[in-house]
Amino acid sequence: MTTRPSVFPGLTAADALQQLRQTSPLVHCMTNDVVQSITANVLLALGASPAMVIDPREAAEFSTIASALLVNVGTLTESRAESMLAAIHAANKAQKPWVLDPVAVGAISWRSDFCQEIIRFTPAAIRGNASEIMALSGLAASGRGVDSADTSLAALPAARALARQTGAVVAVTGEIDYVSDGEKEWAIPGGNVLMTRVVGTGCALSAVVAAFVSLPGDRLSNVAAACRVMSCAGELASREAKGPGTFTPAFIDHLYLLDAEKLNGGAQW
Amino acid sequence: MTTRPSVFPGLTAADALQQLRQTSPLVHCMTNDVVQSITANVLLALGASPAMVIDPREAAEFSTIASALLVNVGTLTESRAESMLAAIHAANKAQKPWVLDPVAVGAISWRSDFCQEIIRFTPAAIRGNASEIMALSGLAASGRGVDSADTSLAALPAARALARQTGAVVAVTGEIDYVSDGEKEWAIPGGNVLMTRVVGTGCALSAVVAAFVSLPGDRLSNVAAACRVMSCAGELASREAKGPGTFTPAFIDHLYLLDAEKLNGGAQW
Amino acid sequence: MTTRPSVFPGLTAADALQQLRQTSPLVHCMTNDVVQSITANVLLALGASPAMVIDPREAAEFSTIASALLVNVGTLTESRAESMLAAIHAANKAQKPWVLDPVAVGAISWRSDFCQEIIRFTPAAIRGNASEIMALSGLAASGRGVDSADTSLAALPAARALARQTGAVVAVTGEIDYVSDGEKEWAIPGGNVLMTRVVGTGCALSAVVAAFVSLPGDRLSNVAAACRVMSCAGELASREAKGPGTFTPAFIDHLYLLDAEKLNGGAQW
Repeated sequence: MTTRPSVFPGLTAADALQQLRQTSPLVHCMTNDVVQSITANVLLALGASPAMVIDPREAAEFSTIASALLVNVGTLTESRAESMLAAIHAANKAQKPWVLDPVAVGAISWRSDFCQEIIRFTPAAIRGNASEIMALSGLAASGRGVDSADTSLAALPAARALARQTGAVVAVTGEIDYVSDGEKEWAIPGGNVLMTRVVGTGCALSAVVAAFVSLPGDRLSNVAAACRVMSCAGELASREAKGPGTFTPAFIDHLYLLDAEKLNGGAQW
Repeated sequence: MTTRPSVFPGLTAADALQQLRQTSPLVHCMTNDVVQSITANVLLALGASPAMVIDPREAAEFSTIASALLVNVGTLTESRAESMLAAIHAANKAQKPWVLDPVAVGAISWRSDFCQEIIRFTPAAIRGNASEIMALSGLAASGRGVDSADTSLAALPAARALARQTGAVVAVTGEIDYVSDGEKEWAIPGGNVLMTRVVGTGCALSAVVAAFVSLPGDRLSNVAAACRVMSCAGELASREAKGPGTFTPAFIDHLYLLDAEKLNGGAQW
Repeated sequence: MTTRPSVFPGLTAADALQQLRQTSPLVHCMTNDVVQSITANVLLALGASPAMVIDPREAAEFSTIASALLVNVGTLTESRAESMLAAIHAANKAQKPWVLDPVAVGAISWRSDFCQEIIRFTPAAIRGNASEIMALSGLAASGRGVDSADTSLAALPAARALARQTGAVVAVTGEIDYVSDGEKEWAIPGGNVLMTRVVGTGCALSAVVAAFVSLPGDRLSNVAAACRVMSCAGELASREAKGPGTFTPAFIDHLYLLDAEKLNGGAQW
């Protein structure tokens, strides 16, 4: 059985968020067609700056200007894959971190091959659900696309293995989120089931991870902070929402209004 | 003059919705760039699972995994058309139903040709406004793009003819929606004019039609249920909204909260 | 030092808005992937009709049907650039106005070249932030993408020069918006800082400019009216919003509910 890691301290998340607001990192988002707007709005609410640039030449140029790069394969196409590769190599050359969101990896063949290819290029972090992290690590998974059939704790060994293989901090998210750098691990409780009934909360989290890994300091802690910020705002928003429609505006508001007191509250065990 | 069909019973819609929530069909949405987010959120609120996959190879593979396929030509491109054809053929081979939303057909030449080509490949359902259904059926129409200048009842004969020609259930939507399988017909009143001031309510309905045609049982009845679910939530949301901005969150909430009592209420004649 | 122009009269904006609601112009939006939905919803709330058509053949055909064309280079690609050129030439041939939103021009090389190329084809209006307008006019700028580091008043001389060079009305937007046709100028105060924490308010304004320049009457005044309509709704929405999440629905509602009394209120100096 997998041992549950300690809960990540909310006050550490608050310190990281304060740093994010002060530096306002510019996040180059190469993400899927469905979540462009919520991704940008989540970053803006937190105080980061989003930019979506997708032409191969422009993407390579822009990833050297940006603070971090997000690669999300949700609606991958041949030309988008080409642009992503160009951007990843340019980011690596400019020593800017990049983050992978391996949407539906394991469920569809071509993107699975593409993700296996690019994780060799030193991602700073990988964020996925249990199915995706298990598939990417080579362990068996039961994914049927974007939903996760495995619980996140069961995927923690896969996250650990993937972290050791790639050098990335790996976040496996679900009812409880877990982050691992291959050695040390944190648990991030919170959130609410309504977040699974709104498109893009997971994809937006990956963009937030990209914003946080551009900050100085411990990378594992920065990825955990990204997860905590999103789960805290989700939990607060769910208390006010009547359903997934009113959840979204409340969630964005809470990201904007988060402070140390709120981040330090919530579930413990 | 066209005789008005009977109003579709709300309790039958409630039964279909219950079945949808139990089975949570996975809808492969190949839709336009504008409505990706609202389409996904509408499906999620109802209890279905959306997935947008667009690369030709991936789309063909994924349409055999999904419960149903949606093809919406709103922002058609050459490569998107190629992917849609691959997905349609794969869905047919795997005996999965597919649904056509012929956005702006009749107003623009190329997509009109494309839609004429693909309706030969046995769509399970077609959902459009009066102009689109009339244009697709070969009857004269006065469309100027995405708005509908004809009322839906006037297009019911065109819907009937199109249903007989293609074997699809045809939904022609407007102030009142009508569905026809070429023989039997239903009317679905409800909704609110605010729905025409929010982008994507029609396109999202087509995705909901795709979710419902994946269910067992009478296909005409399932398409009517999809229309009823959307018009009912629209009517309830419009009572709370101050304008189209607050309409959308309320609409999504009501989709999430719909029950038999609400679906059985509303306009009769 | 640049002299501050007079404040554009709210009642003139109200007259233009009334005309827009009566004629419901059809705006062909070739815009970036991130803002498609908010752009369409803003136009619909004001009473205009949006349509996004992007295939080269279709875009050329459609821009002769539409009342005006918007070209926004936010997520430019080779094939999108080809379509935009085809649409611009077709619009010019059909004597339909087109509007440029030069997103992140100056910060990225290829799109800068593309924008320099297309401003030779008689845009009716150009809408950008201070960095973008300065870069496009050839004056030095300090842009790092979508944010504007310069204030709008400092960019007014650049706007004036660009208007003289291209024949377009140029709007440089920021805390205060300024419009220039190269001779006459207006200032449009209002808005709220929350608008910079929501993606697409600037891009949507460019679409609104396209809707207004399709109206008869003085073009400078019509562009100023577009700015006033958006800043007024933004100001009203910010009074109700708790953050950028609840701002957006309130903003769309206020666009829908705007009247002469509201447009005539607000800041003066």
